[in-house]
Amino acid sequence: MKKNQSSRLTEQHKQSQGVIGIFGEEAHQHDSDVSFNSHIAQKLLEEEYPQLTFRYRKDISKAEINQYLQKIDKYLGQTLFVKNSKIKPDGGIIEVKDDNDNWRIVLVSEAKHQGKDIENIKNGTLVGKNSNQDIMVAGNAIERAYKNISEIANYMLLEPYFPYILFLEGSNFLTHDITIERPDGRKVTLTYNAGNLNRLDRLTAANYGMPINTNLCENRFVSCDELNVMLQAVSIYAQKDGERWKADEMVSIMLEVARTSLKMLSKDLFNQLTKNISN
Amino acid sequence: MKKNQSSRLTEQHKQSQGVIGIFGEEAHQHDSDVSFNSHIAQKLLEEEYPQLTFRYRKDISKAEINQYLQKIDKYLGQTLFVKNSKIKPDGGIIEVKDDNDNWRIVLVSEAKHQGKDIENIKNGTLVGKNSNQDIMVAGNAIERAYKNISEIANYMLLEPYFPYILFLEGSNFLTHDITIERPDGRKVTLTYNAGNLNRLDRLTAANYGMPINTNLCENRFVSCDELNVMLQAVSIYAQKDGERWKADEMVSIMLEVARTSLKMLSKDLFNQLTKNISN
Repeated sequence: MKKNQSSRLTEQHKQSQGVIGIFGEEAHQHDSDVSFNSHIAQKLLEEEYPQLTFRYRKDISKAEINQYLQKIDKYLGQTLFVKNSKIKPDGGIIEVKDDNDNWRIVLVSEAKHQGKDIENIKNGTLVGKNSNQDIMVAGNAIERAYKNISEIANYMLLEPYFPYILFLEGSNFLTHDITIERPDGRKVTLTYNAGNLNRLDRLTAANYGMPINTNLCENRFVSCDELNVMLQAVSIYAQKDGERWKADEMVSIMLEVARTSLKMLSKDLFNQLTKNISN
Repeated sequence: MKKNQSSRLTEQHKQSQGVIGIFGEEAHQHDSDVSFNSHIAQKLLEEEYPQLTFRYRKDISKAEINQYLQKIDKYLGQTLFVKNSKIKPDGGIIEVKDDNDNWRIVLVSEAKHQGKDIENIKNGTLVGKNSNQDIMVAGNAIERAYKNISEIANYMLLEPYFPYILFLEGSNFLTHDITIERPDGRKVTLTYNAGNLNRLDRLTAANYGMPINTNLCENRFVSCDELNVMLQAVSIYAQKDGERWKADEMVSIMLEVARTSLKMLSKDLFNQLTKNISN
């Protein structure tokens, strides 16, 4: 059965609303809690694909990544300094069991908040050395996001898909200007493309400058002469108004990416997908 | 004229010593100044390859990286939020002019210092909340190094080599235990593979876990079924004893990597390399 994207998204939305219905107020308390929402996504995947078995992991050890790299090429994955090093994307990792009983990644998610200017202006809090500025010069901590991306990319080095979502929120990730009123009535405009505020450019190397708010899970290939290069691109989703993520939005995006993973893995899930589950 | 690696390294060492001789005390003041040393490396390359033209740049604009990506595939390099975004590896970028008058990268370098435990212990300074610890729990700022690496990797997406050097120094990058004496005579051992001290594992995704202190400039290829993947690996050099880098060591490593770049580019430098310079 084929569905077009729009109706599928509507259905995803309904489904995630349903689950939030089940989880009730608790879900809304966790609105931008990527780990909680990732667990919801897993439950929805389990309902939607009862033929398949999913699991959630909160981390992957570096030793396991090395093992994977060593299988590909003995020269890779040789180094490990701290024996129990782990990679912990804050939304965890969802995997599916394939027809050969191997666990394959279908979703990795992280959520980052950077920039508190909206909250500060709403509260009338001035910032800076002399507490006389509306806007704080943006920091660079977000650049640390690349580390986990690179680790998971290595762990999926020979997979033709990369289901890594980076959810962004906060005033450093605006995609259009917004105006906020202070308690004293003065209005402050945040200019989305100001160099002291916007930090989206610090992340777009991770998606090769492809559009943000787009599912880039299926790897793209580019070539030149004899070279053919596979691009593992992060799907970057930014809350453009500086609002917090809502659970249903986050879960809908997670489901869309996870479905792409399952489609890309379908050759290795074929036996399970075509087994009559009533047997 | 072929030289084996050992004699070549000795010659590089002599050459860089020579230049330091010329620069005198100034060079030693800049011992671990990667930008100063990169300029020295450029001068040595100019002396060694008088047929070729080199230039030094302190940054590359993101717009230029996007332009390169767009030429490969219109879907890439689309996004730019802050118009004048720039990538500034602290050692800058050395390029060579190829036979078609295009500038090609031969060296990109960065140097990072993290962990002041050795200095603190030598000075008898205790650290931590209650100023009662010898060793400070290591931070994660080093993970930001991936950002520039990813940007330059994109800018060299279809080049079969990646001349990116990351020089590390400080107590967070030890590769064996060291013991340091405090002013009061008490000796403190820094255990290189302790989880609260070592941060090398935070960086090795950038070289796919291949050995550190190794020239990985020439890209490696791995494959599986129909997939063939090119690895752009950073050459990570760690000062294992927690010492500072010496200018001659840094320059020697830079020259070795830059030479590999020139070799990888030789097809595009052939006309210049074979032109009789006395004409």
